[in-house]
Amino acid sequence: MQIKHTPSHQQNIEKPENWREYPYPFVTAQVDKSLFPIAAWRECSRQALSLNAMADWTEDRMGTDDPFLVEQIRTRLLPTRGIHASEDEILVTAGAQNSLYMLARLFLNNNTLFGIENPGYPDLRNIIQMIGSRIRCLELDEYGLIPDQQLDDCNMITVTPSHQFPTTVTMPLNRRKELLEKAEHNNMVIIEDDYEPELNFQGSPTPAIKSLDQTGRVIYVGSLSKSFFPGLRLGYLVGPAHIIREARALGRLIHRHTPTNNQRTMALFLALGHHDALRKRLRKIYKSRWLEMKNALTNASLNFQYATGGSSFWVKGPDQLDSKKLLQQALNLGVVVELGSIYYSNALPKKQYFRVGYAAIEKENISEGINHLKMAIDSTLRL
Amino acid sequence: MQIKHTPSHQQNIEKPENWREYPYPFVTAQVDKSLFPIAAWRECSRQALSLNAMADWTEDRMGTDDPFLVEQIRTRLLPTRGIHASEDEILVTAGAQNSLYMLARLFLNNNTLFGIENPGYPDLRNIIQMIGSRIRCLELDEYGLIPDQQLDDCNMITVTPSHQFPTTVTMPLNRRKELLEKAEHNNMVIIEDDYEPELNFQGSPTPAIKSLDQTGRVIYVGSLSKSFFPGLRLGYLVGPAHIIREARALGRLIHRHTPTNNQRTMALFLALGHHDALRKRLRKIYKSRWLEMKNALTNASLNFQYATGGSSFWVKGPDQLDSKKLLQQALNLGVVVELGSIYYSNALPKKQYFRVGYAAIEKENISEGINHLKMAIDSTLRL
Repeated sequence: MQIKHTPSHQQNIEKPENWREYPYPFVTAQVDKSLFPIAAWRECSRQALSLNAMADWTEDRMGTDDPFLVEQIRTRLLPTRGIHASEDEILVTAGAQNSLYMLARLFLNNNTLFGIENPGYPDLRNIIQMIGSRIRCLELDEYGLIPDQQLDDCNMITVTPSHQFPTTVTMPLNRRKELLEKAEHNNMVIIEDDYEPELNFQGSPTPAIKSLDQTGRVIYVGSLSKSFFPGLRLGYLVGPAHIIREARALGRLIHRHTPTNNQRTMALFLALGHHDALRKRLRKIYKSRWLEMKNALTNASLNFQYATGGSSFWVKGPDQLDSKKLLQQALNLGVVVELGSIYYSNALPKKQYFRVGYAAIEKENISEGINHLKMAIDSTLRL
Repeated sequence: MQIKHTPSHQQNIEKPENWREYPYPFVTAQVDKSLFPIAAWRECSRQALSLNAMADWTEDRMGTDDPFLVEQIRTRLLPTRGIHASEDEILVTAGAQNSLYMLARLFLNNNTLFGIENPGYPDLRNIIQMIGSRIRCLELDEYGLIPDQQLDDCNMITVTPSHQFPTTVTMPLNRRKELLEKAEHNNMVIIEDDYEPELNFQGSPTPAIKSLDQTGRVIYVGSLSKSFFPGLRLGYLVGPAHIIREARALGRLIHRHTPTNNQRTMALFLALGHHDALRKRLRKIYKSRWLEMKNALTNASLNFQYATGGSSFWVKGPDQLDSKKLLQQALNLGVVVELGSIYYSNALPKKQYFRVGYAAIEKENISEGINHLKMAIDSTLRL
């Protein structure tokens, strides 16, 4: 009896396990622990542990979510993205990864054609490859996914319009409308992975594609904890009720539901205004780091993708740079960056790209870190 | 674009949503809230929220589990089942359901033959049907699964030897050995779902099949929170390192990992001895309820499966009873029981069986509840 899948052989975003020990950790998907809202989180945990609250959440809810959390998502979070949904159109999930997994399982099989952004999110590509759906790599420009004939025949696509993952560009409203029209014309489902909508540092945020959707073909993927507590694994899906019903039934088979105590703690965190306050605080801190990053990259003459926000920069090294070699040279100088080629789904990924995050590095270390990165690039080119 | 699966149409164990409002809730998979170890759990949550502890668990661990929790499982729980495992042979999961889902996904496709106990666990059958593997319904007797030629050609089977789900019978040591030999001979993988091993009220517990396994073909499914806090969704898998590695990689795609705060709180709950104390306390309370149940069922001349423990009874009504009709009659008299036919995988399930749990009903209400159940049976037969 042989195992049928070996997902451990798939390519993933990697970082040194001891990345926190490096002086210049330009990693992504991790956060600065000093920004964790410890007092507020403790208070919400304490309240969730009160006898009254516990009576609500100690039982196995089978398939249903904490109505208190659903209400907070519905009335506090979704309106900021222009989305109006009823309770039966919302499902609490174990984060965006879990949302993407469930949608892929519900909609794809080996007869479907799934369009993914290229470059895009590797662990989504990994899911699709495991399921066996055909994949089409979709081209991007400085406004994100291009809604042209490349979408023809796709049954489903994912898109990261707030900040394209990993290039960080924002899709303008007009293009969102074009994309939606194309989807309606092609009878295609759009998964809108609304990655980092709050990290927009110039201009005002653009409404979600979901907010424009009149025909129920956009399924919205949101995160609850990514920006401050990624280990909590909480997110949500918004879509037509009949699809949410199936996603809920599938979730029941996969994991029943997300832990009831965390659902309640997060509901309190939202209801008491802590989430809002934290978002504002993080936005301010991240904006000042982001500006520092832009200056440092510009001063180091590094060629980065212009964008209005996001928690990382997508940097194009000199044409002859092999970013795989750069990674090691950078580590030698105390700098952690991420390989760019991992985000490409085609056979010949662009080797000169890499990704530089700033959510886990303090502002005062950014400029020196980028200088060290520049030195690492120079020494890689001399190899 | 059509959805490919409609898991909401699958058959499931159902109970009235307001079951707590009935005077005689003989439900299963739910617990008596008054037994929740509130002070101990609060203390562990508080400790997990200390600055030092939080530094460990606020980050996204990607694929790795809390080493503290793994160590507690390895050194406190597994030895009580005769199992010795190293750290890389253990994976923390979102409960037994999540463990079964991951194993099914790793090992099955539409060419495999999967053997399930009949009667058995409906939400496992639902997973297998969704994956599209062929299913063989396996016969049981009063010692559980029969390890004869019915296992031939099966690539993988699941078995609940501690207390067969739902009949509650315990598989004796000799049969466990026979089953393992058969599996070796057939090159078959056994999933050992070690359901309620601690709820044995007569004689001493039998070692897990996994403890006898020399060839790495048994994968052990354990639960951490089912008995006191099913909404927490925490469990674990034990198997050969190369399989655990793949299950971990699959888990990364499905949900990354279980929430880090809950992993740490549970680790403390184990390390500080609360889990042990609770288990002893529950065992004592459940034993007295179990004896009360046995007496009440005997006094009511109800024919139940003889067993040495488990948190429910498997009752065979009179041959002409339709337990679907009984359910409604029982509700009218304030009694909640569970349909038996749902556990059968074949086309003609035995209609006269039903399941009676006692984990959510207090001892003093048992006898009266069973009397009311008896009345409901009589009135169903008169319909």
